[in-house]
Amino acid sequence: MSVVVQNIERADPAIIEALGECGVATVHEAQGRKGLLASYMRPIYRGTSLAASAVTILAPPCDNWMVHVAIEQVQAGDILVLAVTSPSDAGYFGDLLATSMQARGGVGLIIDAGVRDIRDLEEMKFPVWSKAISAEGTVKETLGSVNIPVVCAGALVNPGDIIVADDDGVCVVRREEAKEVLKKAQARVALEEEKRTRLASGELGLDMYKMRQRLAEKGLKYE
Amino acid sequence: MSVVVQNIERADPAIIEALGECGVATVHEAQGRKGLLASYMRPIYRGTSLAASAVTILAPPCDNWMVHVAIEQVQAGDILVLAVTSPSDAGYFGDLLATSMQARGGVGLIIDAGVRDIRDLEEMKFPVWSKAISAEGTVKETLGSVNIPVVCAGALVNPGDIIVADDDGVCVVRREEAKEVLKKAQARVALEEEKRTRLASGELGLDMYKMRQRLAEKGLKYE
Amino acid sequence: MSVVVQNIERADPAIIEALGECGVATVHEAQGRKGLLASYMRPIYRGTSLAASAVTILAPPCDNWMVHVAIEQVQAGDILVLAVTSPSDAGYFGDLLATSMQARGGVGLIIDAGVRDIRDLEEMKFPVWSKAISAEGTVKETLGSVNIPVVCAGALVNPGDIIVADDDGVCVVRREEAKEVLKKAQARVALEEEKRTRLASGELGLDMYKMRQRLAEKGLKYE
Amino acid sequence: MSVVVQNIERADPAIIEALGECGVATVHEAQGRKGLLASYMRPIYRGTSLAASAVTILAPPCDNWMVHVAIEQVQAGDILVLAVTSPSDAGYFGDLLATSMQARGGVGLIIDAGVRDIRDLEEMKFPVWSKAISAEGTVKETLGSVNIPVVCAGALVNPGDIIVADDDGVCVVRREEAKEVLKKAQARVALEEEKRTRLASGELGLDMYKMRQRLAEKGLKYE
Amino acid sequence: MSVVVQNIERADPAIIEALGECGVATVHEAQGRKGLLASYMRPIYRGTSLAASAVTILAPPCDNWMVHVAIEQVQAGDILVLAVTSPSDAGYFGDLLATSMQARGGVGLIIDAGVRDIRDLEEMKFPVWSKAISAEGTVKETLGSVNIPVVCAGALVNPGDIIVADDDGVCVVRREEAKEVLKKAQARVALEEEKRTRLASGELGLDMYKMRQRLAEKGLKYE
Amino acid sequence: MSVVVQNIERADPAIIEALGECGVATVHEAQGRKGLLASYMRPIYRGTSLAASAVTILAPPCDNWMVHVAIEQVQAGDILVLAVTSPSDAGYFGDLLATSMQARGGVGLIIDAGVRDIRDLEEMKFPVWSKAISAEGTVKETLGSVNIPVVCAGALVNPGDIIVADDDGVCVVRREEAKEVLKKAQARVALEEEKRTRLASGELGLDMYKMRQRLAEKGLKYE
Repeated sequence: MSVVVQNIERADPAIIEALGECGVATVHEAQGRKGLLASYMRPIYRGTSLAASAVTILAPPCDNWMVHVAIEQVQAGDILVLAVTSPSDAGYFGDLLATSMQARGGVGLIIDAGVRDIRDLEEMKFPVWSKAISAEGTVKETLGSVNIPVVCAGALVNPGDIIVADDDGVCVVRREEAKEVLKKAQARVALEEEKRTRLASGELGLDMYKMRQRLAEKGLKYE
Repeated sequence: MSVVVQNIERADPAIIEALGECGVATVHEAQGRKGLLASYMRPIYRGTSLAASAVTILAPPCDNWMVHVAIEQVQAGDILVLAVTSPSDAGYFGDLLATSMQARGGVGLIIDAGVRDIRDLEEMKFPVWSKAISAEGTVKETLGSVNIPVVCAGALVNPGDIIVADDDGVCVVRREEAKEVLKKAQARVALEEEKRTRLASGELGLDMYKMRQRLAEKGLKYE
Repeated sequence: MSVVVQNIERADPAIIEALGECGVATVHEAQGRKGLLASYMRPIYRGTSLAASAVTILAPPCDNWMVHVAIEQVQAGDILVLAVTSPSDAGYFGDLLATSMQARGGVGLIIDAGVRDIRDLEEMKFPVWSKAISAEGTVKETLGSVNIPVVCAGALVNPGDIIVADDDGVCVVRREEAKEVLKKAQARVALEEEKRTRLASGELGLDMYKMRQRLAEKGLKYE
Repeated sequence: MSVVVQNIERADPAIIEALGECGVATVHEAQGRKGLLASYMRPIYRGTSLAASAVTILAPPCDNWMVHVAIEQVQAGDILVLAVTSPSDAGYFGDLLATSMQARGGVGLIIDAGVRDIRDLEEMKFPVWSKAISAEGTVKETLGSVNIPVVCAGALVNPGDIIVADDDGVCVVRREEAKEVLKKAQARVALEEEKRTRLASGELGLDMYKMRQRLAEKGLKYE
Repeated sequence: MSVVVQNIERADPAIIEALGECGVATVHEAQGRKGLLASYMRPIYRGTSLAASAVTILAPPCDNWMVHVAIEQVQAGDILVLAVTSPSDAGYFGDLLATSMQARGGVGLIIDAGVRDIRDLEEMKFPVWSKAISAEGTVKETLGSVNIPVVCAGALVNPGDIIVADDDGVCVVRREEAKEVLKKAQARVALEEEKRTRLASGELGLDMYKMRQRLAEKGLKYE
Repeated sequence: MSVVVQNIERADPAIIEALGECGVATVHEAQGRKGLLASYMRPIYRGTSLAASAVTILAPPCDNWMVHVAIEQVQAGDILVLAVTSPSDAGYFGDLLATSMQARGGVGLIIDAGVRDIRDLEEMKFPVWSKAISAEGTVKETLGSVNIPVVCAGALVNPGDIIVADDDGVCVVRREEAKEVLKKAQARVALEEEKRTRLASGELGLDMYKMRQRLAEKGLKYE
């Protein structure tokens, strides 16, 4: 049952980087409003915006053994995505594991559980999006798997999918759809710039989006 | 059922501003410990303290159409207060809507749901108190209402009521009671200054508030 | 039933200070992964790391009378630990009480309820770990107790136990075990430094901790 | 601040009874999908369906003094609606208060807090919809109010409004709108009977509601 | 983006039925402790135990349009599995939809949201496992999809996967693995019968599972 | 660190039984409103009322090994009280363990985590009060302790303390205080009978408890 998949496909680094520049909200919209992880996934510190290739972990509750196994599979530009088999808020990950990740070029962690040593992690500039912050220790007794599809915070993540994460939260993009999603995301960015200018000049969304007639048809009354 | 009330009464701007200087805790106490929104309403960034006149929105879950409608009703110094008809943590509001708000003089948002683009909002100095931070997109399909009484995060807010908000949370003051509440709040501020000085000098609350006798009468024992 | 215990034992200040330097995660591990308060206990601002001797409070919901009683029992280096008899997120504590605490040498507050005036508290450098931030006022009507054993956020705290708190959360150390725990915690700190160096050089945890054989025995497969 | 309003208007008992026969879901729909209390309000036992006139209570956390005050205001066919000034799950109400209620013709309790003695209450056939079940005792120290407008579980309830409650939850109907809402609710009931027959015969909602064209226009694809 | 997949594979009905006889806990264990939906998914009434083939729905929050679309795809022995694109506790489903389901041979509903008319559903013997019970109405405005893979209450469900549900909760079995899982589940059932007899006779698990030596090796001490 | 304490003191069975007849609410009040476990602890089926002597377990998350160890320590009339070192809702306990418990005379389980096979448990008349119902399996890898003081659902429980549990929840009574608490509880029961009669006859609590004067002194106004 417990397996480590060693050779996974990754998306083109240029596409990954470009998705990161678009940000979570834009990428989520561009791919048809899908792929968001639950809103309880929060960054342990603000100000990071990134995109990276997922190395996935399915871990037992309060057992971080598989994190050690996963780090061997990490390449430069990868991010760990840890899902649990049963809810836990224990602190699976701290500054030592982050040191190991950085030594291999890993850029961050998405974890549907807890993390600790957050002050050290911030100083190391190792970003984490987690469900909880907790010093609760974990054991190394039960196997899980690495690089299998997992459900993390309500979203399906396959190994090699692209994770986009910033202060708004975390979004996953299917590897196979990454190029197409990027195109749409970049189109949105361009479009938003124009909208921003018009709104800043005082034009109303009601007019810019031509909403008045449809609102009236739906029955909106002004008093 | 869906209505936009266009002419609402607002309180005297001088009173609103003065309430903002008193802060949430003081205003809440001054009006008899009422008017607080639920404690899950948190600012998306720290350090803002304001008071403003409420433009209210009753919105369907995951549908931000009424925000566009409401912004047309916003005057300088107003704040949007968005309540939902069913719980949602979707991201109803982001930097484009904030741009539109600022173009009309709107000063912030209170939302019993989610908000996104929070990094941009902080850079724009557009404060939001929300239940969630989420990039989840919304639709524009179902009507709601603007400027009707709403229950937002457990508190009744009428259009034109005064919202006081700071790092401690959000409080609403009835427009008709604003002047009286301000008077009491300012009296508390004056009183607190004196208490602070005495406590800082080492005097105990037990003595300053003359609590010892009543504690003894209630049966408190010292061992 | 309501009692104030006045003469409590405290641990050696040098031991307390040294525990604070080890941090929550290390101390928690050193004493066998026990003593953590629930992960919902969060600091109202980041960056504080401390250890202090507990003065405990058992308070009724929404009633902060016992805080005044407890402050009289505070000595330099003490921290208040407030537990409630029924869940509450009201704001039991604000800048006036913090002023009084600081006048007596008190260094902070651990509260399984709410706190207010958090901006002032941060400016005063008075750290608080709490379940909630809320301006909700409290009354002074019902007795509780001071310096009895309490269950705070799921952990038993005796008066005079040592509280260690930082950005990762809060941990309690039995006074009687403090010396022994410190020894083990300092040993861990020393050990971690060496591990950090090895991991930073690229050595894997799998090798450093010699995990490969046991993983294979448990049945882990590589594909 | 603390007041007991003694003479409140009540709706026509025949209208109240008829609303009760329609049930919560139907009444909620009939009045335009408004008036529902939060879904965490659950009956302490299943199988009751009622409508009643609200006697409202605004109570402090963990303090049930106002329940005694409210019961004096209860007339035959009334239901108590208890809102709190700060969240609490304590057990404000048990079999003694229910005995007193029944002696006055009171028919139930809606409480945004806890209730106890639930086995006795079920045997007495005294229905309660509550946020929690808890034996936690309460005090009688702080005043609240009776028969003022309250926000209970997210819904505004005025004294004399009609409460409809069944296994699906709790809904409030404005007293002034009760007659109109009843007419619409009864129309829905009639309509649903016909729909039920058609659906039971195998007709699809897609056809009965003529949804296919609009689905196609919105872009739904069949594979 | 919105699609209805019409021809899905289903597992052998005999296998499905046999899985239902094993129950959730046994099936979950038999397939290596995977496939459980979150524990907040509770039956609206107790005593049902079933297995069925999944027809999946991905629905927007508070919009039940796709339920109508999905019912056309239901065959005898199918169960609806509804996942949402954003959290909602609205009442997507009631007695009319259940009538339509039963007319087509549908046997139940798994919904990561709310359900209403629960008394009628129980009388109709139409079982539902849901996150919430709520009379909150929904709209028919936004498309979703039918018979695509969905994440429902934290578990990935593909159309045609087998849902096993009873009073303990809900478990999903991959269609491709159903035969193998059944074999293991039936083996467990047989084995448990023997264990039950031995335990009932007073034999200890410590002895039956030969745990004493391993406990001692791990360091367990008896005082 | 991991220990099994074998010889624990138990209270007089007659006292235990008599406490059970008083019920949770009465016992909780009689001992000064203390000892209640959190209100999320709910019986898996209604109608049981018991008192029993606690055999305590401190267990790791998702690991039920110590349950087997504890059952050997169970005597007739004992109840297991399981606390966890980190939050978990996994299903630690099912019908096999209940069979083993009943073979030894054990009468129930209090568990700050999950339980499964609840239908079997109800048929066996083996009552459980738990935080969750979940089929999630557990492992047997990490030691805990048996018969040490534990914090279960927010309450301190020592081995040999008396657990009183019914539909209202769970309360713990210190073994040393059991006799005194029983006396007070029985006095309350007697007193309540008289109050019930008076209230049933229509007398108001306002009069029976002589509350009117104190309410007026506090400032209650009638309109």
